[in-house]
Amino acid sequence: MSTEQEHPKKAFGWAAKDSSGVFSPFKFSRRETVDKDVMFKVLYCGICHSDLYVVKNEWGRSNYPLVSGHEIVGVVTEVGSKVQIFNVGDKVGVGCMVGSCKSCENCSDNLENYYPKSILTYGSKYYDGTTVYGGYSNIIVANEHFVVRIPDNLPLDGAAPLLCAGITTYSPLRYFGLDKLGHVAVKFAKAMGVKVTVISTSLNKKDEAIEHLHVDLFLVSRNEDQMQVATGTLDGIIDTVSALHPLLPLIGLLKSDGKLVMVGAPEKPFEFLVFPLLVGRKIVAGNNIGGMKETQEMIDFVAKHNITADIEVIPMDYMNIPMEHLLKEDVRYRFVIDIGNTLKSTL
Amino acid sequence: MSTEQEHPKKAFGWAAKDSSGVFSPFKFSRRETVDKDVMFKVLYCGICHSDLYVVKNEWGRSNYPLVSGHEIVGVVTEVGSKVQIFNVGDKVGVGCMVGSCKSCENCSDNLENYYPKSILTYGSKYYDGTTVYGGYSNIIVANEHFVVRIPDNLPLDGAAPLLCAGITTYSPLRYFGLDKLGHVAVKFAKAMGVKVTVISTSLNKKDEAIEHLHVDLFLVSRNEDQMQVATGTLDGIIDTVSALHPLLPLIGLLKSDGKLVMVGAPEKPFEFLVFPLLVGRKIVAGNNIGGMKETQEMIDFVAKHNITADIEVIPMDYMNIPMEHLLKEDVRYRFVIDIGNTLKSTL
Repeated sequence: MSTEQEHPKKAFGWAAKDSSGVFSPFKFSRRETVDKDVMFKVLYCGICHSDLYVVKNEWGRSNYPLVSGHEIVGVVTEVGSKVQIFNVGDKVGVGCMVGSCKSCENCSDNLENYYPKSILTYGSKYYDGTTVYGGYSNIIVANEHFVVRIPDNLPLDGAAPLLCAGITTYSPLRYFGLDKLGHVAVKFAKAMGVKVTVISTSLNKKDEAIEHLHVDLFLVSRNEDQMQVATGTLDGIIDTVSALHPLLPLIGLLKSDGKLVMVGAPEKPFEFLVFPLLVGRKIVAGNNIGGMKETQEMIDFVAKHNITADIEVIPMDYMNIPMEHLLKEDVRYRFVIDIGNTLKSTL
Repeated sequence: MSTEQEHPKKAFGWAAKDSSGVFSPFKFSRRETVDKDVMFKVLYCGICHSDLYVVKNEWGRSNYPLVSGHEIVGVVTEVGSKVQIFNVGDKVGVGCMVGSCKSCENCSDNLENYYPKSILTYGSKYYDGTTVYGGYSNIIVANEHFVVRIPDNLPLDGAAPLLCAGITTYSPLRYFGLDKLGHVAVKFAKAMGVKVTVISTSLNKKDEAIEHLHVDLFLVSRNEDQMQVATGTLDGIIDTVSALHPLLPLIGLLKSDGKLVMVGAPEKPFEFLVFPLLVGRKIVAGNNIGGMKETQEMIDFVAKHNITADIEVIPMDYMNIPMEHLLKEDVRYRFVIDIGNTLKSTL
């Protein structure tokens, strides 16, 4: 199998070789842990829906072979000479980003996630011109600025999805001062002490939402009576739906000064009337994960409140069941790959 | 001519009798100044574009005869027994609203403008079931809560448009912390000490914007090179355009955390991609005038900074030149009717 061997550290994992979405074992390399680099042994890696989009090249920018995975946790095995905040043996994680300029207005404000050229964790070119690979692999090397410390009381498997799904909802809850959505967001919001409403297209998830997540209200968006009753009652909505859907009914649920925050990004344009925004000073906003400072803050917050993602742990081999199939199953929460125990060496 | 004679105070003005948009003299009545009511002699009344929409029944909710005008200034002639803050002889104004519940969450927060059932200054039904008439008339009666004091140093004609056009841009500048648009908004923003960019479809207004309003930058939205250069440079945009127009180029001009605030309300839906909002935590918001407390604050602010609207004063008779024609003329700023000097009594 073809490999990039520019780097001295041999690595292995599973990669998609083309847009078919099928993963298979793959050998490659990682750079040395120089200066501020941290190397860690990957123990768990979550599967994010965006992995699927990228693997299937649905955004048209994918390069193969592609080792995806950006919800990565493990234990530090080496640190570079200038690393200041991590030691061998520390439990750490890497999320969606591994590089940014650190000097522009966004980066200076701890908003690396809004720096337009930030280097994504997999499929991007690093500063040395080589491809970066994600977490479906035995080891990873990253600059310490993009490494998050995982407190000891957090289980690593349940923490993994927080590095993408978690920060994606934590950040807008904090920035926009909101109170809604996504099962991790529900846990955050409950921990922040606010009343939580879940809006779903069907009743399927209601029992679990009420009994397990303790949400205060469950609204079925296709039930016009329910939606009518709830008109003008919500302070904000975090909209995690990545398919096109009508915005007007959601805007109608908001109080004055209410905020509809989109964290999913449908590829097609939305249609919306501006008048309903005017009559209550309402906001439609976008939010894309969070900066590194906030990601660490989120992890510390979940450790304090004993929040983890609800997960289903799968062995590496399950990637041979095409991801799309996996994701179409009755996916209640997040899949996490048990890399540490099930990834077999192909070196 | 038919008149409503439910009320004891005889009044006269000019009304549209149907959706043709033609105004003619009209006799009607105003209620007594009971309790907290203030009566004032109208001296000037601005012409707002929304007057035209309502007169032509473009929003489908108009009742005739219709005395429009909601940028009304004059001098107090009578006060009710419970009026506390106004005296005969005071210079005052009435803007877009004359009634609200004063007890709901919006009204308690001084956001009467977002109370869904607030009573608009003309064409609405008042609490006693009678129709309210606007400022194209000799006198007006309003509850003191909806009356604004005009400081002595402000010229009444130049102050009139501020009661709608002024608060419409002052409020989002304050609430969203912004720095752009509309000639009055430009004056506000300059007085607030921020850098101002004007975005227009053509160069027509450039010289005036630079020389007279002292804007810092003038962008032609149809000039792709200019728009490209300005990408990611603005903290916020107040969009006063009431016709449908592309939002994406405007969103592209915003920095991270930038805000596009719509104060015009096109009737047709906008199309927009949500992704550009995500990649910079950007906001599209609506804003509809301001509450009474903020309207008074705005008037006090303009008095302090010697800001008035740039106006063209016209006599009452000019309403016979159909408004639409008037408004299609080279309207640089706002028309204000000299009611005090040119409205002839028809009693």
